[in-house]
Amino acid sequence: MKPIAPSPGINRRGLLATLGLLPALSVPLFPASAPAQTAISGGLPSWNDGPAKQAILDFVRATSDRSSPSYVVPEDRIAVFDQDGTLWVEHPMYTQVVYCLDRVPDVMAKNPELKNREPFKTVLSGNREAIARLPLRDLEKILAATLSGMTVEEFNAEAKKWLEAAKHPRWNRLYTELAYQPMLEVLRHLRDNAYKTYIVTGGGQDFVRVYAEKVYGIRPEQVIGTAGGTKFAYAGDGKPYLTKEPKLLLNDNNAGKPEGIHLMIGRRPYAAFGNSTGDREMLEWTAAGAGARLKMLLLHDDAAREYAYGPAHGLPDTKVGTFTPALYDEAKRDGWTVISMKNDWRRVFAFE
Amino acid sequence: MKPIAPSPGINRRGLLATLGLLPALSVPLFPASAPAQTAISGGLPSWNDGPAKQAILDFVRATSDRSSPSYVVPEDRIAVFDQDGTLWVEHPMYTQVVYCLDRVPDVMAKNPELKNREPFKTVLSGNREAIARLPLRDLEKILAATLSGMTVEEFNAEAKKWLEAAKHPRWNRLYTELAYQPMLEVLRHLRDNAYKTYIVTGGGQDFVRVYAEKVYGIRPEQVIGTAGGTKFAYAGDGKPYLTKEPKLLLNDNNAGKPEGIHLMIGRRPYAAFGNSTGDREMLEWTAAGAGARLKMLLLHDDAAREYAYGPAHGLPDTKVGTFTPALYDEAKRDGWTVISMKNDWRRVFAFE
Repeated sequence: MKPIAPSPGINRRGLLATLGLLPALSVPLFPASAPAQTAISGGLPSWNDGPAKQAILDFVRATSDRSSPSYVVPEDRIAVFDQDGTLWVEHPMYTQVVYCLDRVPDVMAKNPELKNREPFKTVLSGNREAIARLPLRDLEKILAATLSGMTVEEFNAEAKKWLEAAKHPRWNRLYTELAYQPMLEVLRHLRDNAYKTYIVTGGGQDFVRVYAEKVYGIRPEQVIGTAGGTKFAYAGDGKPYLTKEPKLLLNDNNAGKPEGIHLMIGRRPYAAFGNSTGDREMLEWTAAGAGARLKMLLLHDDAAREYAYGPAHGLPDTKVGTFTPALYDEAKRDGWTVISMKNDWRRVFAFE
Repeated sequence: MKPIAPSPGINRRGLLATLGLLPALSVPLFPASAPAQTAISGGLPSWNDGPAKQAILDFVRATSDRSSPSYVVPEDRIAVFDQDGTLWVEHPMYTQVVYCLDRVPDVMAKNPELKNREPFKTVLSGNREAIARLPLRDLEKILAATLSGMTVEEFNAEAKKWLEAAKHPRWNRLYTELAYQPMLEVLRHLRDNAYKTYIVTGGGQDFVRVYAEKVYGIRPEQVIGTAGGTKFAYAGDGKPYLTKEPKLLLNDNNAGKPEGIHLMIGRRPYAAFGNSTGDREMLEWTAAGAGARLKMLLLHDDAAREYAYGPAHGLPDTKVGTFTPALYDEAKRDGWTVISMKNDWRRVFAFE
């Protein structure tokens, strides 16, 4: 089906949200040392002993032990996780943005008249610095052209194919291999204790759903993300199909996260994990509930094994969603737990 | 919090959808015979043997038996159910509409200036015939005033309180007692075979979520309905809260049902149950998938035990969502199964 060109009525906020916005591209890319697969023995083996690991174990025990004053009935056990920078690597560029940029040549093949038009011309040039400098309105056009106008099945097939081949420039690994091993253990530990685990991401809901079950053990219906509308119609043979539309239904960033949680889950979570100001409202909403609530923020302070950015670190901020000093202060003031990647994680990736 | 008056920018289609629209009020109301609680022995005991019961049993067996060519892996087993007229009684008026009308005096108490304004004046008069004649734009005002402007917790508490007291005029029973016993057995039979059961209703998502777990065994996150937006904000003490807004996110009727299923589940169902044209697209979308798919339509042909309306029956049509002769023909042509309440159900309610 023909991709839909951005229309004047297009929702700007939505597209920015779908995009997730580009983090800075100035991070030096270098290959990691030779990987080695390691077996997992249950619990949280990739965590070092310390306050972060302890906070997780204490919370799970307190809410699942029937004799505990903080006991939570299993049907209310909801845990929510931001994705980019919380469950997997978000530098130097959100994976979905890389996907959209990579899709541009395909879109051009179907719409050759766009070839000499900006921003597609710049994307086709392959000049990463120029691409990083593209203004947001241009990125919106790229999103509209690459994430809508196809059936939901076509989108899923295209995204799946890309994810099975595209590699992160630093590690030369599939993006799906760049999930954080310690967080995969937290997801499993929570599920082992009857928690229902959800992703609540500013990224595109349909995109993340393509791989969430395989990578995180999270089914599509437990992925909440920035979501566009679809349109039901009939093909010539009378068979119905759904087309992805460039129309925003949910901007799942900032206040959109608790709003999205209400829309899709209808209950307040007991545990929330994030890493940036885009997750602030979700953590505040979680924290405002009665009883034991787990509020965790991941601090990227490990330039050697991953990246270092956020409070007191040198890397330039992402355009949105930064772990600002103000967020750090709020976390400290309100008793949220800050995870230090450098100190709290024994291992970052499964392949290490 | 002050209820929000309808604004000129309000989404008309959304409010109509939330309302669900009023079925005709001309049904004679009479008390049922003395009820008797009956134990359930598992399976589908409230179903008579016949093609409808057989279709359900055959489908579940074919999709859950590993040796069957139609076997479906457990994580893909999704079954969707319309609510009004499919899982519980929708005559003489959708339960949620009764709720909204009953809420009007409360809203008036907080906004006395509305007391002498239409449509609130008519609702306060208690004249049911006049209420039934209210034009749709007036019903929208009632919805906007009664279903938004409060926090999500306030809404839940109000709806819960009402549901624990309000009774259906014909049976003098709580509305939640008017769930169809045979359908409760189908829900359980599907869940016993690893199906995830969802409600996909034109009614308000937040309203149905209040009682769905208790009545149907369906958790809030598995209720998809017509959904309005919420707004995240901070109270004076800095505590965050969510307010229900008169802004439509999802009109979960007709094409909105498959669109809502994609948004909230992200996968095509294997089984779908409905009773009206509002469910047509959902059934078509389910039917268009590969392999065994269960498509069931409930025909209300039992005036003695419930109501008779739809093809070849005397009751006047509801304003929307009717089981039309065209829908009946489509069902017959495409191999969907029509459930005859009169012939296929041994018992209609648990209290019989």
